[in-house]
Amino acid sequence: MSESEKVAASPMKATVSRRSAIGMMAGGAAAGVVGARIGQSSSTSGNYEDIIDARGFTGNWAEGALKSFVPPGEFDPYFIFASGGHSGQMFVLGCPSMRLLKAIPVFTREAWQGYGFGSDQSESVLREGFDPSKSEPLGWGDTHHPALSETEGDYDGRWLYINDRANGRIAMIDLADFKTKQIIDLPNLGTSHGGCFVTPNSEYVHISSMTPSPYLAPGGYAPLSDYAKYYRGASCWMAIDQETGRIDMDRSFQIELPPYTQDLADAGKLSSFGFGFINSYNTEMAIGGDLEDPKKALESTAIANDFDFLHVIDWQKAEQVVADGKTEDMNGIRMIRLDVAVAEGVLHFVPEPRNPHGVDVNPTGDYMVVSGKLDPHASVFSIEKIKAAIAAEDYDGTDDFGVPILKMESCLEALVELGNGPLHTQFDGDGNAYTSLFVDSAVAKWTLGPKAGVGEGKTWTKVDHLPVNYNIGHLCSAEGDTVNPDGKYLIALNKWSIDRFPPVGTLHPQNFQLIDLDGDKMSVLADMPIGFGEPHYTQMIKADKLVHTLRVYEPGTDPLTMSKSRFATDPGDARIDVNGTNVDVFATVMRSHFTPDVVEVNLGDTVRFHLTNIETTPDATHGFAIPGYNVESSIDPGEVVSIEVKATRPGAFAMYCSEFCSALHLEMQGWFLVKP
Amino acid sequence: MSESEKVAASPMKATVSRRSAIGMMAGGAAAGVVGARIGQSSSTSGNYEDIIDARGFTGNWAEGALKSFVPPGEFDPYFIFASGGHSGQMFVLGCPSMRLLKAIPVFTREAWQGYGFGSDQSESVLREGFDPSKSEPLGWGDTHHPALSETEGDYDGRWLYINDRANGRIAMIDLADFKTKQIIDLPNLGTSHGGCFVTPNSEYVHISSMTPSPYLAPGGYAPLSDYAKYYRGASCWMAIDQETGRIDMDRSFQIELPPYTQDLADAGKLSSFGFGFINSYNTEMAIGGDLEDPKKALESTAIANDFDFLHVIDWQKAEQVVADGKTEDMNGIRMIRLDVAVAEGVLHFVPEPRNPHGVDVNPTGDYMVVSGKLDPHASVFSIEKIKAAIAAEDYDGTDDFGVPILKMESCLEALVELGNGPLHTQFDGDGNAYTSLFVDSAVAKWTLGPKAGVGEGKTWTKVDHLPVNYNIGHLCSAEGDTVNPDGKYLIALNKWSIDRFPPVGTLHPQNFQLIDLDGDKMSVLADMPIGFGEPHYTQMIKADKLVHTLRVYEPGTDPLTMSKSRFATDPGDARIDVNGTNVDVFATVMRSHFTPDVVEVNLGDTVRFHLTNIETTPDATHGFAIPGYNVESSIDPGEVVSIEVKATRPGAFAMYCSEFCSALHLEMQGWFLVKP
Repeated sequence: MSESEKVAASPMKATVSRRSAIGMMAGGAAAGVVGARIGQSSSTSGNYEDIIDARGFTGNWAEGALKSFVPPGEFDPYFIFASGGHSGQMFVLGCPSMRLLKAIPVFTREAWQGYGFGSDQSESVLREGFDPSKSEPLGWGDTHHPALSETEGDYDGRWLYINDRANGRIAMIDLADFKTKQIIDLPNLGTSHGGCFVTPNSEYVHISSMTPSPYLAPGGYAPLSDYAKYYRGASCWMAIDQETGRIDMDRSFQIELPPYTQDLADAGKLSSFGFGFINSYNTEMAIGGDLEDPKKALESTAIANDFDFLHVIDWQKAEQVVADGKTEDMNGIRMIRLDVAVAEGVLHFVPEPRNPHGVDVNPTGDYMVVSGKLDPHASVFSIEKIKAAIAAEDYDGTDDFGVPILKMESCLEALVELGNGPLHTQFDGDGNAYTSLFVDSAVAKWTLGPKAGVGEGKTWTKVDHLPVNYNIGHLCSAEGDTVNPDGKYLIALNKWSIDRFPPVGTLHPQNFQLIDLDGDKMSVLADMPIGFGEPHYTQMIKADKLVHTLRVYEPGTDPLTMSKSRFATDPGDARIDVNGTNVDVFATVMRSHFTPDVVEVNLGDTVRFHLTNIETTPDATHGFAIPGYNVESSIDPGEVVSIEVKATRPGAFAMYCSEFCSALHLEMQGWFLVKP
Repeated sequence: MSESEKVAASPMKATVSRRSAIGMMAGGAAAGVVGARIGQSSSTSGNYEDIIDARGFTGNWAEGALKSFVPPGEFDPYFIFASGGHSGQMFVLGCPSMRLLKAIPVFTREAWQGYGFGSDQSESVLREGFDPSKSEPLGWGDTHHPALSETEGDYDGRWLYINDRANGRIAMIDLADFKTKQIIDLPNLGTSHGGCFVTPNSEYVHISSMTPSPYLAPGGYAPLSDYAKYYRGASCWMAIDQETGRIDMDRSFQIELPPYTQDLADAGKLSSFGFGFINSYNTEMAIGGDLEDPKKALESTAIANDFDFLHVIDWQKAEQVVADGKTEDMNGIRMIRLDVAVAEGVLHFVPEPRNPHGVDVNPTGDYMVVSGKLDPHASVFSIEKIKAAIAAEDYDGTDDFGVPILKMESCLEALVELGNGPLHTQFDGDGNAYTSLFVDSAVAKWTLGPKAGVGEGKTWTKVDHLPVNYNIGHLCSAEGDTVNPDGKYLIALNKWSIDRFPPVGTLHPQNFQLIDLDGDKMSVLADMPIGFGEPHYTQMIKADKLVHTLRVYEPGTDPLTMSKSRFATDPGDARIDVNGTNVDVFATVMRSHFTPDVVEVNLGDTVRFHLTNIETTPDATHGFAIPGYNVESSIDPGEVVSIEVKATRPGAFAMYCSEFCSALHLEMQGWFLVKP
């Protein structure tokens, strides 16, 4: 029987046929109202009013229902890629339905997808994802700022990058199969916050340190009393391999930064192409530590200065410095030392109101919007002015580490009063900006000045104010940080939900609020509780840009290489090779059978299962679980998964398919027998 | 400053005030349409039609939108508690919005909630959750069948139980705080499937083996050739402590079962109170193992017999047998051996069509509905007839293990033709049953006969058929397995989604379809992709039954004991106690400070952090993360969390609050310094 015949003979066939039948039935149903969209018929319209009435909808609730609903079987026009905060994962939602389509495991093990429960593929990503010279074995991360790959400043749907704020790491996810393919533990970074962002053609993905690390100290350790001397930050420019999306350490470099707390960052684009921008706070270098005097608490002393520094980095100059060999090896990566960065014009500072949070470059690249949470204004800096100030050496001295400080007034284009606690800004295609107001729990809509490329004659003015519930952090409009934003929808990433959802215990969900940007006035359409992580930032991409996404692998694919696995097993070739205490099981997997399905080994053997899912039907995924042995793997159609098991415990273990696959799914089991 | 003053002085105050302001604004907005619900105004109604038109809604899509939407700030009337399959977790959704409110970690570590990343509380649950004499350290589970606690056969909103199908375990979740409090690794169980169900007053939570284990063999191991001799199943009656909801091993017992594959199970209620029912398949005792001959594959040989056996267990008789001491200790639990169970009338068999899946007891307890996936009928058995047959010893001989087989025709009430691949059945309050049809990808609605307590004069008839997309497994109606079901909504737990959602990689989501049960004809309202696990079964409970759920802990609570922690630290009592190489850090945690915030220790020290969140405001949760040390914990308001860290690695680690808490959240950090 050929493979296609087997598939045809499988129980799925009934389902697929049934599907066609359903399609026909649905068509039939639709034909019943042919010529009249529901809602155009007054009697049906009456039904809606009855439902609205029966459900007690007031205000614009029915509008929220109709605008956010995505009908059964229909697709959302946008994907939202949201970080999962200290869950360590990434979430994929549809917009406007706000339905959670997938949770992608990144830094934390996840059993449904078999990520970190035995498969060589996932174990190697996780194992290579921490540097034993730097960390204990790590089992989680704190994902903050996703960055979709870009071409000419637009999302291109190829890859996704995400930082681990906790441990100074970065991961790459392939949007071909929505799987994590690489984690890099960055040398010289303790925590990280500044990024990820990608440069406009995905030349680099950037990440910078949050708190500094004592990497300059002998032996890598220094007490806090030597903070200014030995602790340093780092700006990391991680080169992207254009074929695989992976980070190429050999072409990557770091730039040493003063021991401030570097915060959010963004890439220049179009008129600011070639630059990167990083906010900072705690330029006071406060370290806390006084138990008795609350005035010396870090959150008090770190806000003493009126101004912190926007870091302006010329990464094209940095590339030349690296090419010229003016770097030092710093724990395995080339680093441009601070004095070199200053001497070569790679790094400049611009004063920014104290303790800022977001820096966001507008679509034309002309403006850098900095929001200081302790200042009610957005400070808008101009790249034209910054370039001119650099050229003119229009300095206001240097900081303690010799970095030249450009005069703030020479770089500032506008101060726009927005409200209390402005944090982050996104854009639409009509020259409008949207800034989250953390303290006000609101979104401010405002117009950009004339150089924003649209809305000629507009001024720097707040035009709308929408309360949200509650404590908004980041926000995200459709493609709102690209050169070509859609606007349309805005997601408010609210940090508290308090009483917005029914009680589900002492830990409350966060709240994604969906906001309608059509029309002059913003309005809240729907709430989406997020009770499985704390997303910090999201990006929203047109769904039809994900042209590289597979529904099924080519037969025999190793997802780590995306090429044919050397362990791929054809139907009929299933076998068990025994070589002393090494047992290799070459298994085929299809509805409803593992071949072989009985594997008998001796205590102490090393058993390697190589499992090839020989199905070609999309969604014909099988699981592979061994009770008592902590083995769980997901094998998608066409995929090859290898798992090594040390037979350390005698017994009869009923291995089985853990993903419901067919009417005979329960019978899809076998025995892993470890003889005493 | 008092604690309440501190809270008042915190940045949250602004938010709370803002909340009131928003409330007023919302009120104002509502006042704008006073006297006229939207939808009653023709001009507004016109707006709806415009939206419906603009969005291209056809068929009953707008109705789906309006019926499934839960407006911002409003609550769903029902909670759905869904197993997460091989994710190892539980999911809480609202119905009808289908929004995921929370993922509760159970068998798998989860970082957002700090479950298994250092806290003593979670580590002890996970550590005690596997028996090292039985398993390798386990990091995942396969959750299948949640069971809410009951009083008089109705959900009472106190506790939740869930089985681990992979490793033969059971977990208990406290609905006071939605946290996992106990995991039991059950002796003599390899895999498990039959349960969880609770008896009508939560006397017991039941679970039974799926595949048998060789627990009768000397040393606990036997080859498959000794399957019939040494392998056995077990029905586990785990006694519930009525104060804590925990399983009391000392009052629990098992019943030995033949080495069939025991499948789904249910508890009797009302007229069948005191009984438990377990399906079985593979009474052929097929073991697979033939690489050459597909006819000998387990999924073929395990379906040879025309009938398998419904196990009927009299658990009140079993209690008496246990009280009489007629048990053996079997690896740490009292077991009623098979011969005793037979002799004492604890266990009877009833033939059921081959390879059945679900057994579901109707609300009045009169009928046991068995669905055989290889038979298009539901087989309805009568408890009255079963009791009579037992009393009359109306046997058709015994099986190979001596268990008396009641005559099928003496116990059968009805055979109802439903469609292809019937699996599971739920009920409403009007005498209707709803059965999933896996092969047909449909739901059958049918009427129960006259003894169902409602619908006098109804006959055993299929009355409606609704296609779903695709391959439905379990289904769930509101309170649909209690003595008092609501019906109203039905969730179809579809195993495949194929093309229902946009591509999110080679592993596709499952699909929860929301079905409207109002009216005679069922209709699909909405699809909800489930891309974070594979739920098998759910229970749906009225949200207002969760009266025990806390929004905030009493100050100083240890969630494991739900009483005052001996490590609770009052404001002002924060300190570091050093005793040789043991360092105890008694810390208070509140916006925006850890006190103390600098902890300097020596390499090799054992450091115990005792963190008391001294906030009393709901949702004022803080995280506690130590970079490089794999420590991440969530500390809810009032909660005390203890974490032990071995200082094995020198360095300066910027510990921080990982849950965004206030405008100065980023400044809520400190230093964990490990001196070389």
